[in-house]
Amino acid sequence: MTSHDSYTDLLIIGAGPAGLMAACWASQYAITTRLIDQKSERTKAGHADGINSRTMEIFDSFGIAELVLRQAVGNMDAAYWGADEKTGNIRRIKCQPSQPQELSRFDQMLLNQGAIEQILIDYLHSKGRVHVERGRKAQDLELPGRSDQNGDDEFPVHVRVVPANGEDGQSENAEVIHARYVIACDGARSWTSAQLNVDSDVWKTESTWGVMDIVPDTEFPDIRRACAIQSSDGESMMVVPRENNLVRFYLHMNGGEGRSPNGPDKTEGCLEDLIDMAEKTLKPYRLSYNYCDWWSLYPIGRRLIKQYRSDRIFFAGDAAHTHSPKGGQGMNISMQDSYNLVWKIAAVITGSVDPAILETYQSERRPEAEQLMEFDTRLVYAYEGGMEDDSEDGVEAVREKYAGFMAGVAVIYPASILVENCQSNTAVARNIQLGKRLPSSLVVGQDDGCVVHLAKKLNSNGYWRLLVFSGDLHSAGIWERLSVFAKEFSGQFTNHLRPQSTKISQLFETFLIHSSPRSSFDKSQLLGSFHDFGTELGWDHVKIFADDPSYDGDTGQAYQHYGIDKRRGGLIVCRPDQHVGWVGDIEDVEGLDRYFSRFLIRKDRT
Amino acid sequence: MTSHDSYTDLLIIGAGPAGLMAACWASQYAITTRLIDQKSERTKAGHADGINSRTMEIFDSFGIAELVLRQAVGNMDAAYWGADEKTGNIRRIKCQPSQPQELSRFDQMLLNQGAIEQILIDYLHSKGRVHVERGRKAQDLELPGRSDQNGDDEFPVHVRVVPANGEDGQSENAEVIHARYVIACDGARSWTSAQLNVDSDVWKTESTWGVMDIVPDTEFPDIRRACAIQSSDGESMMVVPRENNLVRFYLHMNGGEGRSPNGPDKTEGCLEDLIDMAEKTLKPYRLSYNYCDWWSLYPIGRRLIKQYRSDRIFFAGDAAHTHSPKGGQGMNISMQDSYNLVWKIAAVITGSVDPAILETYQSERRPEAEQLMEFDTRLVYAYEGGMEDDSEDGVEAVREKYAGFMAGVAVIYPASILVENCQSNTAVARNIQLGKRLPSSLVVGQDDGCVVHLAKKLNSNGYWRLLVFSGDLHSAGIWERLSVFAKEFSGQFTNHLRPQSTKISQLFETFLIHSSPRSSFDKSQLLGSFHDFGTELGWDHVKIFADDPSYDGDTGQAYQHYGIDKRRGGLIVCRPDQHVGWVGDIEDVEGLDRYFSRFLIRKDRT
Repeated sequence: MTSHDSYTDLLIIGAGPAGLMAACWASQYAITTRLIDQKSERTKAGHADGINSRTMEIFDSFGIAELVLRQAVGNMDAAYWGADEKTGNIRRIKCQPSQPQELSRFDQMLLNQGAIEQILIDYLHSKGRVHVERGRKAQDLELPGRSDQNGDDEFPVHVRVVPANGEDGQSENAEVIHARYVIACDGARSWTSAQLNVDSDVWKTESTWGVMDIVPDTEFPDIRRACAIQSSDGESMMVVPRENNLVRFYLHMNGGEGRSPNGPDKTEGCLEDLIDMAEKTLKPYRLSYNYCDWWSLYPIGRRLIKQYRSDRIFFAGDAAHTHSPKGGQGMNISMQDSYNLVWKIAAVITGSVDPAILETYQSERRPEAEQLMEFDTRLVYAYEGGMEDDSEDGVEAVREKYAGFMAGVAVIYPASILVENCQSNTAVARNIQLGKRLPSSLVVGQDDGCVVHLAKKLNSNGYWRLLVFSGDLHSAGIWERLSVFAKEFSGQFTNHLRPQSTKISQLFETFLIHSSPRSSFDKSQLLGSFHDFGTELGWDHVKIFADDPSYDGDTGQAYQHYGIDKRRGGLIVCRPDQHVGWVGDIEDVEGLDRYFSRFLIRKDRT
Repeated sequence: MTSHDSYTDLLIIGAGPAGLMAACWASQYAITTRLIDQKSERTKAGHADGINSRTMEIFDSFGIAELVLRQAVGNMDAAYWGADEKTGNIRRIKCQPSQPQELSRFDQMLLNQGAIEQILIDYLHSKGRVHVERGRKAQDLELPGRSDQNGDDEFPVHVRVVPANGEDGQSENAEVIHARYVIACDGARSWTSAQLNVDSDVWKTESTWGVMDIVPDTEFPDIRRACAIQSSDGESMMVVPRENNLVRFYLHMNGGEGRSPNGPDKTEGCLEDLIDMAEKTLKPYRLSYNYCDWWSLYPIGRRLIKQYRSDRIFFAGDAAHTHSPKGGQGMNISMQDSYNLVWKIAAVITGSVDPAILETYQSERRPEAEQLMEFDTRLVYAYEGGMEDDSEDGVEAVREKYAGFMAGVAVIYPASILVENCQSNTAVARNIQLGKRLPSSLVVGQDDGCVVHLAKKLNSNGYWRLLVFSGDLHSAGIWERLSVFAKEFSGQFTNHLRPQSTKISQLFETFLIHSSPRSSFDKSQLLGSFHDFGTELGWDHVKIFADDPSYDGDTGQAYQHYGIDKRRGGLIVCRPDQHVGWVGDIEDVEGLDRYFSRFLIRKDRT
């Protein structure tokens, strides 16, 4: 048994959506990352297909949202169909927007999982730092020993990796990867969690559903809308429009009696059964199909691991939680897991923050998964129960109650080392919640007049952002307040907190968003006031914006949107994942200092 | 002297913006295309840098506008600076939008020519049909002989091509390319036009300008705005903000006395001279620079060839016209030349249209270039004359008068075989002009509720588009009128005009844009009415749109925008380049038939 040893800062096991997102994020940092997957190719067809608004925002922060928009279809309408008692046919009960417009600047999009994986793979390729090592599987896992915890081993997790198609343990191509940290994204039957005997909460149910992606031939008028359909026979079905004229159908296969214990297999049903069921449910409309891209049967069940972390190993995606696909959430929550995690690991590896922040992965992501379990339980119950559409437990009521959750924008990370606790601060920005991602607003560039979504400036490159909402620069005293802020921030604050080898400008980007007419002052005036920021903070021309009506009339609402008083102003700190970590008054450099002192590694500590 | 022979439908000489655009367009068609260039690499720095709104629209029709938006800066503000008589310093006279918002959904963008070329090269690579053959120059040109014009030679233009760095005529790598058609995009000193002794109109002037792309260090407040500056010393300067913190400066180098006859060379000035002049003009503001990307001196002169076509050879871009760079037009007019030309050549080569349409290249593009000469003369005169800003001949007045021309959206192709002459038809769509590109409007998908720019559906793939504006489907008689139209169109019309080997659905895409509430009827009702369109016309779910307010409230203005009466409706025909060829009433299938009969090759002709 031969093997060679190698070393990496971060090892990601599994190149599905969660693992690929982890690798994309890790590509932004000066750390070494490996990504292995035992399969020989990406997902070809089927599986997940919903990309919620928050995932689109995250994709946009990597510059790849456009690639999804180009291929996917938008999920705009939600139609509800029920039984017409007189005829026994189905009839449309209502059609409405699938989610409120104000939730996000992105709609929910629909595209097969393989296409999403390909976009992430192409992104990795373009960055050139990490590539997917296919056909390689983890075989042995050695955890940090007692002695190692004293710091003897900087790469304490040892993972033996062999060719996926080789004979166990006999391979000459075995490699032992020594990693600082490992992220297990190895799916619902996670090899990693099996090695570590990870405890899970498990909710088993007995029902089985069928799913198929077909190009239908039908005169059903809502075939290009997302539909929840309940027929008079009690059949329940979901219809989801997809790319390339595909349509996904979810069908409830009544009851679980006589099912095989390991879940359904394809002897229990075939594509023609699904088509028959779907046509029966659609009565009076006819249904046949020209092409089937994918189909499957699956049992409804839920599982959620108790601990998202085991020492230096973290679980993300299906390795942490499984549930039904009905809400279109799985792929999103999975990618959002690793999006939450990787910037923290990378900041710890690069030495700028305290490893204590890694505790927030569990405290921020497990409650989100708990809510997912609750939502999924209610939604499946609503579908299977054949609840009347207007009942409190009906599909529409559940979807409405969870609209923000489904869009992925309602998640609020609880107070922690990374999220300030003081809710009184939020009076500064009444519509901003600590722990929630900052919603975007259109602003206009002070110097160039270009209209831009503020979120475009919060892209995923590892920077923390300090947003200085100065208010109206013509208000009395505002220049003095800003000058004091600039002086204290660039003096005491940055000197105090600067990590030994890091320039403060490598950690922070600072933006000024004022609410004065753009034409009413020149940059030179501002530059004078902020002279103390100097070159190190990069206070240059691309970072001043006005909340002022642009030529196209689209801007001028940001202060109102965020609930910031134009005479008072305020400071907002966004974490590298766009979640708000701290809010305070312009004078409150001390509060800002206290916040960052909790986790940024100080000069005087070294 | 050895050589081998090869054959191609289309040979493009020169891979600057005009030649690359020609190749991108040709990539859409099932024809063979070669693209040669004698240089060993693309433009590295400097040269053209303005991308006007129409070019952005054309880029978007190839799906590449986003790539420009990502790298370029928007030209939003136009600032005018003049002398302050009291101090002798410059002062800002006004700042205003650089062009009216309603001209296009795209602003003017600023990006160096090399980056534009790279985007087109990458596009060619992604299509995989044409690639740039570099380091290859044309050496001999043999035109169709008399006998060939009888059709003896299907590839009548013979171009001998040799390595650009080889010894003349001695190369063993010589190749004789036999082409059906040639497009000469070989620049201001066109080898092709020299071979053919092409006549030009020439306007010589004596003045010289300097140009530089630098990263400036200055407190001049409008350094990120496009500025026209005239100092009290009579100095004239243009400032153009660019990507990567670059700024372009154009400086008038007084007079042309003593200049070398072949235009200025760099002994007549150096970068430091330009910086000194610029700083003097900017007084009281200081100017230095950190980095210079490119600089040059050039004489102002104008040249326009008399004939854009010589037999099977066409001229495009600088090979057809040269002028000053001041209006940011050169690269745009050049690419718009080949965008006008290639779909016509490709349609002739593929046999679906009469070669007579090729005459419209001259009749459509030369007037545009004549207008360019006039505009350029006036603009340079305004800059050099130091005209008062509010005079009729001042820079601002010229820019205002030519705003639509500069945006590239004002061009109206005159009546011809491809543009209907009957202006009375335009009563159907009061705001649409025959021969002008169709402006875009937002509409909403009937079946999926997605909001889309109509222009996105008119992408560059060679299709003609028939836009059926049905009006309100609830108006009396409208279904009957539509049914008659559908029947006549799919019966008499398509049978009559169908080229022998082409399905009508390979030539046309048909869109229905109605003005009824989207929820007020089902697709099945429409499908019934348009049953005659059948499968051949592909009357499927992606092609029905509503001019109805969408959830975000952005739509519902298309009929008003186009000036179409909702009770009357109308038909609009867009050519493959989005210019309107024909407009008529819904009943007027006969008029439609007459229009297409002029150039589509009919069944009964064969």
